Amino acid sequence: MPERIYNFSPGPATLPFSVLEEAARDIVNFKDRGIGLIELSHRSKEFMAVADETESLIRELLDVPANYKVLFLQGGASSQFFMIPMNLLGPGKKATYLNTGVWSKKAIKEAENFGDITVAYSSADVSFNRVPEDTEYTVSPDSEYLYLVSNNTIYGTQFSSFPQKDAMLVCDMSSDILSRPLDISKFGIIFAGAQKNMGPAGVTVVIIREDLLDKVAENVPTMLKYKTHADKGSMFNTPPTFAIYCVGRVMHWLKNQGGVAAMQRINEEKAALIYKIIDSGDFYRGHAEKTSRSMMNIAFNLPTPELEAQFINEAAAIGLDGLKGHRSIGGCRASIYNAFPIEGVKKLVDFMARFSADNS
Amino acid sequence: MPERIYNFSPGPATLPFSVLEEAARDIVNFKDRGIGLIELSHRSKEFMAVADETESLIRELLDVPANYKVLFLQGGASSQFFMIPMNLLGPGKKATYLNTGVWSKKAIKEAENFGDITVAYSSADVSFNRVPEDTEYTVSPDSEYLYLVSNNTIYGTQFSSFPQKDAMLVCDMSSDILSRPLDISKFGIIFAGAQKNMGPAGVTVVIIREDLLDKVAENVPTMLKYKTHADKGSMFNTPPTFAIYCVGRVMHWLKNQGGVAAMQRINEEKAALIYKIIDSGDFYRGHAEKTSRSMMNIAFNLPTPELEAQFINEAAAIGLDGLKGHRSIGGCRASIYNAFPIEGVKKLVDFMARFSADNS
Repeated sequence: MPERIYNFSPGPATLPFSVLEEAARDIVNFKDRGIGLIELSHRSKEFMAVADETESLIRELLDVPANYKVLFLQGGASSQFFMIPMNLLGPGKKATYLNTGVWSKKAIKEAENFGDITVAYSSADVSFNRVPEDTEYTVSPDSEYLYLVSNNTIYGTQFSSFPQKDAMLVCDMSSDILSRPLDISKFGIIFAGAQKNMGPAGVTVVIIREDLLDKVAENVPTMLKYKTHADKGSMFNTPPTFAIYCVGRVMHWLKNQGGVAAMQRINEEKAALIYKIIDSGDFYRGHAEKTSRSMMNIAFNLPTPELEAQFINEAAAIGLDGLKGHRSIGGCRASIYNAFPIEGVKKLVDFMARFSADNS
Repeated sequence: MPERIYNFSPGPATLPFSVLEEAARDIVNFKDRGIGLIELSHRSKEFMAVADETESLIRELLDVPANYKVLFLQGGASSQFFMIPMNLLGPGKKATYLNTGVWSKKAIKEAENFGDITVAYSSADVSFNRVPEDTEYTVSPDSEYLYLVSNNTIYGTQFSSFPQKDAMLVCDMSSDILSRPLDISKFGIIFAGAQKNMGPAGVTVVIIREDLLDKVAENVPTMLKYKTHADKGSMFNTPPTFAIYCVGRVMHWLKNQGGVAAMQRINEEKAALIYKIIDSGDFYRGHAEKTSRSMMNIAFNLPTPELEAQFINEAAAIGLDGLKGHRSIGGCRASIYNAFPIEGVKKLVDFMARFSADNS
């Protein structure tokens, strides 16, 4: 095997190497059946077992209550931005959104076509460098739900705990699902594109409380009703079989790591190493306010854009790849999802120490 | 390598073995870059090159005119059933549909929410065993388009030539795209799920004439406007990178086979072998009328359901898999898309001869 680089990309992102090896084997010859994984009919008993196992592992790892469905959909998290209000709202119905960055803004824009949307909080005026405390906003009692993005990849912010409000939560967890334990019962819908913490791009996991399935209007297109997919076990039409398989293998790996509680400890340890060097002097500046810091994405700046460019290039030259920040805020960003190895974090931290010493 | 079975499944389906081997290698280590294919950022220069090459090869193989966009979308062909009328129709606008089976019916149902739909032809009364001649229906001049399914997997029917009408054609080519040359200029939209002739499940290729992009109403969700994806080169949000990669490798393989004209000759040869034995006696009965026969899916019956079950089981025992017909019409079906090898067809034909001799 040639040397692996450390891939700090925000998504698609690093996956467990063992999963890549399993996928490589199964793509050519699935379980020695003489047929490739991606050639299997989605209705074959072999693939049905894959899909069932993937769902079971998600339920087990996240302790999903029995009155929730776990769906495998397509179209990315971006398709949830309109599917949620299309299924849950309608003329005169209200929902409350928290604006903590680009992905919230996109969700708000789509929702406004389907209901009466209140943006109860925004950190736009501070470059989205924070997420709110519960005391900073209110949710109207007639709001159908409170929408939030749990982790904001671009800015490196994260809700360290979820809002304690009376409203049902609807949450975009694309970039931190399965990184820590959750009380699912507080949520009506949780969704996440797979390509950060769960697998390759091409499948979106939706966890939805069953009573919400029937709220949808009759004339909504069949494929856009959650109920369609819930009733057919995500097999109403051909699902993205390869992506579902990979999610299952990642779940299997995650279970072997000790599950989400163990993963949270590892994630905290990894993030702490980077925040420690950021806080150790004036050379690096974290983008997020300390109480809003993300364990998944760490956005930071150097003294000048020129030094940032040099930093990114020198890092890449020693196999630390994908450290460029998002174009909307610039700077640098280290994305260290579940599968990102701590050895890579340590190598980055060593490099950061050396780079600041050499360039201060 | 263990022995490969011959996989007659209707989709996901057989892929070129060389593509499976390439995918297996690149998943672990993409072009020796020390990173897996499915870990690559979709905005990395490596993946952008993959997507560009995939699009170029489709354009080359299908001779796509410059005023058409080639898009890579998610949600399966089933999502096109509503996206097409959502983008092209609206209150008072008309479209004409040909009902040649389950997939047409689903498309008609979704379209009826968005416009005034005329079903100009239906073969429902003859178990969808045929597709129409041009003389069997008319298209109103104020129809925005004429919609058809070029190949009907369940019934084994196919349009041997496309309608010569004044109307712009919109065509579901999920099960025969790239199986023969096309005059794209007759079509406004061509779409196809990848999982039959192009790659794994999880991406839908849409070929759309550019002037149609601007017909969409403002309040349609962003992700459901073709224009959104056309303007961003199918990178408005994270695309299904693995599926796009595989389509590219299959296109590369197809080009090496001699392109779609060569593929048509091979497909005709393969289908003729099976139809010949069906027509050689009374034991096998083809479902489709002879002039409507498909080169891609061959649906047939045996004298009794019991013999059909025995046929399917004995075939599977010698590595001829997936021959069970669709539940809606029963019987047997051999799906022999581009990548299905002629050796497998010959083995099936030999088995069919033996089975009928043994059981007549």
